[in-house]
Amino acid sequence: MRTIPSHILNLFHTPGISQATLRLLLENEDQLAAIPSLEEQELVRSVMAGNCSSAAAMTAEALQWADHPGNYILLASDPDYPQILKQIPDYPPLLFVRGDLQCLKRPMLAIVGARNSTAYGRSVAYQIGRDLARSGLVISSGLASGIDAQAHNAAIDAAAPTVAVLGNGLADVYPQVHWRLAEQILSGGGALLSELHLRAEPLAHHFPKRNRIISGLSLGTLVVEANMRSGSLITARLALEQNREVFAVPGSVNSPVSRGCHRLLRQGAVLTETAEDVIEHIRFLCQAQMAMSYPDFVLGSSVADRSGDRVRVPKPLKPLYSELSIDPVSADQLLAVTGLDPGTLSAGLLELELAGLAGHEGNRWWRLR
Amino acid sequence: MRTIPSHILNLFHTPGISQATLRLLLENEDQLAAIPSLEEQELVRSVMAGNCSSAAAMTAEALQWADHPGNYILLASDPDYPQILKQIPDYPPLLFVRGDLQCLKRPMLAIVGARNSTAYGRSVAYQIGRDLARSGLVISSGLASGIDAQAHNAAIDAAAPTVAVLGNGLADVYPQVHWRLAEQILSGGGALLSELHLRAEPLAHHFPKRNRIISGLSLGTLVVEANMRSGSLITARLALEQNREVFAVPGSVNSPVSRGCHRLLRQGAVLTETAEDVIEHIRFLCQAQMAMSYPDFVLGSSVADRSGDRVRVPKPLKPLYSELSIDPVSADQLLAVTGLDPGTLSAGLLELELAGLAGHEGNRWWRLR
Repeated sequence: MRTIPSHILNLFHTPGISQATLRLLLENEDQLAAIPSLEEQELVRSVMAGNCSSAAAMTAEALQWADHPGNYILLASDPDYPQILKQIPDYPPLLFVRGDLQCLKRPMLAIVGARNSTAYGRSVAYQIGRDLARSGLVISSGLASGIDAQAHNAAIDAAAPTVAVLGNGLADVYPQVHWRLAEQILSGGGALLSELHLRAEPLAHHFPKRNRIISGLSLGTLVVEANMRSGSLITARLALEQNREVFAVPGSVNSPVSRGCHRLLRQGAVLTETAEDVIEHIRFLCQAQMAMSYPDFVLGSSVADRSGDRVRVPKPLKPLYSELSIDPVSADQLLAVTGLDPGTLSAGLLELELAGLAGHEGNRWWRLR
Repeated sequence: MRTIPSHILNLFHTPGISQATLRLLLENEDQLAAIPSLEEQELVRSVMAGNCSSAAAMTAEALQWADHPGNYILLASDPDYPQILKQIPDYPPLLFVRGDLQCLKRPMLAIVGARNSTAYGRSVAYQIGRDLARSGLVISSGLASGIDAQAHNAAIDAAAPTVAVLGNGLADVYPQVHWRLAEQILSGGGALLSELHLRAEPLAHHFPKRNRIISGLSLGTLVVEANMRSGSLITARLALEQNREVFAVPGSVNSPVSRGCHRLLRQGAVLTETAEDVIEHIRFLCQAQMAMSYPDFVLGSSVADRSGDRVRVPKPLKPLYSELSIDPVSADQLLAVTGLDPGTLSAGLLELELAGLAGHEGNRWWRLR
């Protein structure tokens, strides 16, 4: 049973006590004796600034919360605190954790992206997330709608643990529509994390800070879709500052949420089509990090199927196939552009469908490969 | 009136005489006196190899062809021969040209890509090609189906000259379905080019060699879509070897013809979303080349509209908008995923359409921005 020093929690819950002070104290155990005086000075400043401290009450609640099974308060000095996170300069001095501490000991890969994602982005996030989870990586993300939720879902469907870092305190789940997802994360052996006190609200300024934890926990960060001025780009920048790899998924030049990824690619992010692209880079570039933080871990290969690279289209069907793309077209349009008669067209489409080359919904057809 | 030395044409038409020999002769005018003996030696070798020379007849036909207005045979020593092409080590010693020689004096940008292109690739090729043409660049390509044809068409629609380099002799147009496109290129002030004798067939091995002329004529080569083992990737490699810029358009990770572009991007090609991306790079990176080859030319900026970068979606419509993407979905699917009632859904879709945010065809809707 872990014991959490209540004077540290008191300091943590006292407005005006900086994270930097807490980090300093935790790094220098011999200075722990200095806490009372330091605490006193900062408390005086804090009270003068008009903050009314309810630190003792909050500490009591936190200690009570941490008594429940599956709830943990990890000091940075705790052996269960993720070692990789402790390598970033502004690591959180305290982490509130709900869930299974074991998943924090495995290598993580962050998958983040736009809330206003497209179906393309969500399907790629799911596909890559699932394959990375199967390879043994723990997927970390931010529990947001869109890409984040898809990444968590992919890991859950792969029966692999996933970690969500919240921008609010663990007494609540935000966005509230994701309470069920949060429960699935917990029952799947994953964890919810926050550096904030239990009742902290999801204030806007929490999220950029939260993002440094997502990237800091992870060997690398994969950005699937991102607006040009967005939290995902902040996470990517933080990952770079933390000397972690940044991965980005390309997409349509006409899609505003792919433009953020394209910007990252211009800046040197690793272009990522499949989980294999991530795994190869982690295997070769992050070996030192892997060896240091996860000495016993063996990274599997993903099960991504690249056999579809080579598409064989029967020659007579090539003109028809060339008119199909990811954007569905109606059979009428195909009649017009190919000049085929209706019978030949529908026979051709059927043949393409049977060959796994075309899909359709009613009268509208698209290319599958 | 240009005079073409018939002894050079004779050598050109003689099987077994290498391009290297012709280049050497054209570069060293003082060695022109040595031609007869050189010719003799190589002819002997050629005849011994079983080649029966009809060089004289071919030369006569070529001279007759070059007598027609708008037909030219340019020796590399001709002042009208494109100077930028002469900078590549294996420049063609002779160029057959149909069309307007003036367009060869302007800076060119190659746009190439897959024959089995998708609608996405064709629309991007058209869009970027049109904007580059408007900025004053001459679009060069290979007259192939798919991306090449779109690039030529875009320039024609922008009332700008465009240059097609063929993999066969200029007595014919290949592919034959593009004879009309070829005529439009000519009537639009562009040109058809070939290094091959007039009646050369479009043999497979001509095309990789042809590609070095496309890239060699151009300040840079933009690859829009490319299969993994394809002529477009060859053109890109040649462009790099020629110290020219390579540009590539990203696309769906699920699209085999975008994978070639993604490979180029991994290798350092310039990620290109709009004509502006090309123009900026040419302006800053190719200034020396520009100044040397086109001292009087001023590069315009394209008219690409980037005002759409920031999408404002009315808040109540955001959940609906988030379900739309470049892949169309049916209104029924939208009903199911949004949980809206039909009236609210159709009002919402209409509002998105009026705001320029969604498009539809019948009952299927997609995101425009």
